[in-house]
Amino acid sequence: MAEEKKAVKEITSMEQDFAQWYTDIVRKAELCDYTSVKGCMVIQPAGYAIWERIQSLLDQRFKATGVKNCYMPLFIPESLLDKEKDHVEGFAPEVAWVTQGGLEPLQERLCVRPTSETLFCDYYAKHVHSYRDLPQVLNQWCSVVRWEKTTRPFLRSREFLWQEGHTVHATEEEAQARTEQMLNLYADFCEQELAIPVVRGQKTDKEKFAGAVATYTIESLMHDGKALQSGTSHNFGDGFARAFGMQFQDKDNSLKYMHQTSWGMTTRMIGALIMVHGDDSGLKMPPHIAPVQVTIVPVAMHKEGVLERAKALAAELRAAGVRVNVDDTDRRPGFKFAECEMRGVPLRIELGPKDIEAGSCVLVRRDNGEKSEAALQGIAATVSDMLETIQKAMFERAKQHRDTHTYDVTTMEEFAETVKNRPGFVRAMWCGDQACEDKIKEETGATSRCIPFAQEKLADRCVCCGKPAKKMVYWGVAY
Amino acid sequence: MAEEKKAVKEITSMEQDFAQWYTDIVRKAELCDYTSVKGCMVIQPAGYAIWERIQSLLDQRFKATGVKNCYMPLFIPESLLDKEKDHVEGFAPEVAWVTQGGLEPLQERLCVRPTSETLFCDYYAKHVHSYRDLPQVLNQWCSVVRWEKTTRPFLRSREFLWQEGHTVHATEEEAQARTEQMLNLYADFCEQELAIPVVRGQKTDKEKFAGAVATYTIESLMHDGKALQSGTSHNFGDGFARAFGMQFQDKDNSLKYMHQTSWGMTTRMIGALIMVHGDDSGLKMPPHIAPVQVTIVPVAMHKEGVLERAKALAAELRAAGVRVNVDDTDRRPGFKFAECEMRGVPLRIELGPKDIEAGSCVLVRRDNGEKSEAALQGIAATVSDMLETIQKAMFERAKQHRDTHTYDVTTMEEFAETVKNRPGFVRAMWCGDQACEDKIKEETGATSRCIPFAQEKLADRCVCCGKPAKKMVYWGVAY
Repeated sequence: MAEEKKAVKEITSMEQDFAQWYTDIVRKAELCDYTSVKGCMVIQPAGYAIWERIQSLLDQRFKATGVKNCYMPLFIPESLLDKEKDHVEGFAPEVAWVTQGGLEPLQERLCVRPTSETLFCDYYAKHVHSYRDLPQVLNQWCSVVRWEKTTRPFLRSREFLWQEGHTVHATEEEAQARTEQMLNLYADFCEQELAIPVVRGQKTDKEKFAGAVATYTIESLMHDGKALQSGTSHNFGDGFARAFGMQFQDKDNSLKYMHQTSWGMTTRMIGALIMVHGDDSGLKMPPHIAPVQVTIVPVAMHKEGVLERAKALAAELRAAGVRVNVDDTDRRPGFKFAECEMRGVPLRIELGPKDIEAGSCVLVRRDNGEKSEAALQGIAATVSDMLETIQKAMFERAKQHRDTHTYDVTTMEEFAETVKNRPGFVRAMWCGDQACEDKIKEETGATSRCIPFAQEKLADRCVCCGKPAKKMVYWGVAY
Repeated sequence: MAEEKKAVKEITSMEQDFAQWYTDIVRKAELCDYTSVKGCMVIQPAGYAIWERIQSLLDQRFKATGVKNCYMPLFIPESLLDKEKDHVEGFAPEVAWVTQGGLEPLQERLCVRPTSETLFCDYYAKHVHSYRDLPQVLNQWCSVVRWEKTTRPFLRSREFLWQEGHTVHATEEEAQARTEQMLNLYADFCEQELAIPVVRGQKTDKEKFAGAVATYTIESLMHDGKALQSGTSHNFGDGFARAFGMQFQDKDNSLKYMHQTSWGMTTRMIGALIMVHGDDSGLKMPPHIAPVQVTIVPVAMHKEGVLERAKALAAELRAAGVRVNVDDTDRRPGFKFAECEMRGVPLRIELGPKDIEAGSCVLVRRDNGEKSEAALQGIAATVSDMLETIQKAMFERAKQHRDTHTYDVTTMEEFAETVKNRPGFVRAMWCGDQACEDKIKEETGATSRCIPFAQEKLADRCVCCGKPAKKMVYWGVAY
């Protein structure tokens, strides 16, 4: 077992150095790698397969609500980006500029899209004329570029993959309903598919998106107690519409401005999967999102009939809709086991000559290490049930961790002490003033994560200034 | 029918002005639109839905041959692009350069990828060490940028979507086998899914990809007799490997250079679908690739039970795997029929009160306009069969058009006269000298499309110089 141990040993323990543990997992599970282009990553096949699963499941949920996909240009002319004041102020400092096309300098600089509100505005202004053309509910899957100074695999890179939905509506109410619908869609997706519990709420004005009237967010908690903004949905009101002249003729023949939303989720969710579920042996993929749900490892593979039986078993599981592979490489089983663990395969099946003779196999769960025997007769149902059990158990474990790392505080001393000694979400009352938000950040290091939809009254007064409290807020140190 | 006719009438007749007909279809079927970024397009939902079908079917075929997807950065540092001499000469004149990131000028210019050979080389050089790491068979779906001077929707735009596969192998033979395998995969995909017949062959040295040892191509013929390069597969030998230091330790412990391939297919295939199958009423989508295969148009929709019966019929077809919708918009049937035709829906079902009473419905084929009655009993099987019939008929019709527009010539006079008066493929013998290729282009306007795998001896001598012929070549005027 020397080589196998070594493969595992190369990972830093998460308790010892969480940041290094994260980097080690990314590298050892071959999820992504930096390139000679500073801050840009190669998403390797094992990482990209996770993204393909996210895309597939999220896209199905989108389409069930009437979303249609499209593709907008990569480039935004500077004059178009400049049209909405808050938006350009928010993004201009971190965009990449194309100044030359072919052998000639461009007459106007083009920025590589950091987000595509301005392009969709341009499109809707041109294509929507009447209330009959509304709503428009479009989305695109693409990469965007933000020239970040410090970068981390999946969590913050100069280029990342995402989807961005952009909608326009005839009324304020309809836009608000779509904004909330998409936030809830993200939340359900995270909880049901990624097994990541989230807090749903609204961003404070300080933390909202550049140009939005209101930004809604789902916030999740990583294993180290830091928060991760996991998906956002914005209501723009008619601000962009006024800047871009996006008007339509309503039923009463009057010209009105459209109401607009946008919403996005990114490859950083791969980072969330690592940091919510992983352990010192590697990734743990929730079965719904796992590119490979089951790996069959034949034991004493070269004995007659073993590999054949393993392949027949794989075919049986595949026919039942299970994503399964057989590790028939010429390596010792211990090495294969370690690799399954590193890649986070939810269920491992060991099958040797004795098992075959006994009509059974050994199932090993990645989430809790539990080993059990199962009859080969009816194995597809056993495995499908167990995958669902694992999915639920992973969500419950993550939720328990989140709940036991959520602390209510009512004084600034408690607040600072909690952030310092007990990493997690901090819940505290707030008066609504940005001055207190700034002071909390300065004194504790925590930022406001969201004003949760599910409000509770923890105290009457703002934790910071002591004035009457308006809202209970989730705070935390965030990625 | 005035409004309906008008909707159709706005299209230029293809016989009158093919280029304008093409542009009209793109616009009226809402496939794509140009934007304020010159030469960059918005792919609208109806167009993008076709691309999603192409992606899905092609990706399945890729994965069945062991291809894995990944994602490489959008940017290539100038020094990396410069490493392979032929490659940089081919692409540098038409790339877009990023010179500023955020508020600061970059120390090194980055080009927006026109193709990603150099990035994959960089990756393989770093990640492949041993013969055990080979082969690597990676692909990515992304957009690329080439700063073209003249652009046309789908056919030639400054940004387009494609997939690019990049592989490395231990031996020359294996690389060559993969190159041919992917070309044949493209050819089968075009013929079986897009119903577009293709000629499989090799590019001449003049027409091959910048940096390749050999480029293979599939060439298709549009309705106007012009050729379209529809997919290419390149064998790079070890040229890039030497430039990028891509070595591996072979079984005998010696260090060897890797052998490399790449292959790509793009959104221009949407243009091919329009130009191979379309007519003066709009698009004709082959059933396999059609985002919507069947549209049910309820007649006398507001009569009791009609819409319900139409929806039940849709549910029955959907359960049988048919991509179907019901047009329940508040417009006259004639308008809906015209729209189905414009969008190229392969089969339209008309269902009114009398049909329902008689237990039947009316089927109208888009490919040949044929109208027939069908029993509602067993309709799913009838529809599925008819979609397969349409798929085959569309391929046969396209093949017949291609074959009747393929001309064999043995003299330069015949060659020039054919190109001038009978647009299509011209087949002629060639000595293998680029001088003749150049002269043929100069005198007739036709370029060599490919040296087909299926060789025939049309004459003993080169059509141009009269020296002994080496190969039969397909020539044509191309998009």
